[in-house]
Amino acid sequence: MSTLQGLAADIGGTNTRLALVDNGRVLEETIVRFRNADFDTPEEAIGSYLSGTGQPACASAVIAIAAPVDGTTVRMTNHPWTCDAGRIGKVLGGAEVTFLNDFEALAYSLDSIDPARLTPIHTPKRQLRSNGTRLVVGAGTGFNAASLFPTASGIHVGTGECGHGTLAVESEAELRLWSYLAVNRGRASIERALSGSGLREIYEWHCLERGQPIAAHSPAGIADLAIAGTDAVCLAAARQWATFLGRVVGDLILSFMSLGGVVLTGGVTRSLSRFLSEPDFLTALCSKGRQSQLVSGVPVSLLEDDFAALTGCASRMPRRGRVQRLPEVTI
Amino acid sequence: MSTLQGLAADIGGTNTRLALVDNGRVLEETIVRFRNADFDTPEEAIGSYLSGTGQPACASAVIAIAAPVDGTTVRMTNHPWTCDAGRIGKVLGGAEVTFLNDFEALAYSLDSIDPARLTPIHTPKRQLRSNGTRLVVGAGTGFNAASLFPTASGIHVGTGECGHGTLAVESEAELRLWSYLAVNRGRASIERALSGSGLREIYEWHCLERGQPIAAHSPAGIADLAIAGTDAVCLAAARQWATFLGRVVGDLILSFMSLGGVVLTGGVTRSLSRFLSEPDFLTALCSKGRQSQLVSGVPVSLLEDDFAALTGCASRMPRRGRVQRLPEVTI
Repeated sequence: MSTLQGLAADIGGTNTRLALVDNGRVLEETIVRFRNADFDTPEEAIGSYLSGTGQPACASAVIAIAAPVDGTTVRMTNHPWTCDAGRIGKVLGGAEVTFLNDFEALAYSLDSIDPARLTPIHTPKRQLRSNGTRLVVGAGTGFNAASLFPTASGIHVGTGECGHGTLAVESEAELRLWSYLAVNRGRASIERALSGSGLREIYEWHCLERGQPIAAHSPAGIADLAIAGTDAVCLAAARQWATFLGRVVGDLILSFMSLGGVVLTGGVTRSLSRFLSEPDFLTALCSKGRQSQLVSGVPVSLLEDDFAALTGCASRMPRRGRVQRLPEVTI
Repeated sequence: MSTLQGLAADIGGTNTRLALVDNGRVLEETIVRFRNADFDTPEEAIGSYLSGTGQPACASAVIAIAAPVDGTTVRMTNHPWTCDAGRIGKVLGGAEVTFLNDFEALAYSLDSIDPARLTPIHTPKRQLRSNGTRLVVGAGTGFNAASLFPTASGIHVGTGECGHGTLAVESEAELRLWSYLAVNRGRASIERALSGSGLREIYEWHCLERGQPIAAHSPAGIADLAIAGTDAVCLAAARQWATFLGRVVGDLILSFMSLGGVVLTGGVTRSLSRFLSEPDFLTALCSKGRQSQLVSGVPVSLLEDDFAALTGCASRMPRRGRVQRLPEVTI
């Protein structure tokens, strides 16, 4: 009899990560990443994963989704999929399906992940007395954050949709960029800049400002060229991106008073991590007038683990279910 | 033997409100408001209040302060006073002194205040299923907010310093105003616009833009003239203020996902309340791209009670102390 509990999944705007969970622990050898674009529906992706792992019987599934989660049907924000707990449960042979917001899952992972996967970005010389509040902030296909508060009944995780807040600019050049990001959208949100497509549009705007042709670089390509230092426009785009990230993270620290620290995450953040140790990022983060000293006393680190949300899902898995591995069936 | 418990105080950036508390309830007839400027220290103001109310013996004092509260000595953000629990306790004859952030106190008041003091500003046609999270947002001498989350162990109140976040602008004219607010300050924070002095500076900038002389109106005077509709510049300043408030409140709703509603408060907000029912405020609040529908589903109301923080202080007062009224002493 197997003690396998079930399935953890992290459905992002571009990729879906899946793993089997045993006794609250992600089985690392079962982690798989799919591109969403290769499947029509999330249940198809999950079905394909289950086929590939020998059709394990899962008593439960905890699924993190890049969208506001309310109820058993969740429409994704940055992808055409709709996640339906009933349809996904059916693919899983009747497993109980729980949805979490993806940043909620990341927040729940913080106390279980390997500390070696957290790289310090900013370690304050004079650390503030912590109130225990922490933030996870991430940029990938979209942008969002979650807060963790200690309460009398344990950690409380709050998630919102801060990436849809209005992007703050501080100069005429930045307002021109803001207007470029706002074309056909009425205004530019934080996510319009601080995402993969945001990095691409920041790059496009820098090309237009310099009267240069716009190359067909992907966001990852722009990050690579910026790190190589061989393309001045990609470099300018990466620095602009890091400046916006610093400004937004500083504002989030002030809103949530997260003296316990900020953990940065997300594929685009990781691809541009080199620029987080350049002055642009930290200067923008700390430029908060009379509260600059407060903000600069908050430690900032980078989470290098692309699968952390799976760990968070596993930590929320109901432990009661003991399930059996079904005999493999040849179809 | 009296059951009088102690003193509630709300020390704002301009005024201090004081009241005696009996069995967790503010004694309305004892409420007094002082101008901070009339005293050198908070203990002087409190001493004067105690003299005027017959030197009641207080077992405890809960004091709300417009500043981040950490420890027993709190330096105010928008006023030169420092609040010291030891010195204040001495004036109170050895009473136990507890400090709260002023927005924390406002948050704690929400479930005790008279519902008649809440005026609906926006009642959504299609109300969202609430997650129970609420926000109190206020503009007075400064700008700040507190969030209320339901947790397994009761209401959790989170306070920060969101007023020091960077003010978001959306047009060239607004960026010119932002630059005016940023003079000698490096950048313009939310509080630089959404406060009494912010309203005054917005008015100054509108005068300069129109090539008109700047009159010596106080923030209250600007609000009065805007409401009377007799001064086009004051009217423009009030509408600009309401637009910024709407934009910032919409962003806070997204960050905190406060589907349970937003309560607006603060002296400047109340003085401009007429403009909260004009389109500028609600249009700015709801202009959040793909999340506009979500934001517009959140109810918004105005708290008409200038003494609500005292109610919040009273609700946090330790109930154990029963104190005696000391015999009046002629000095």
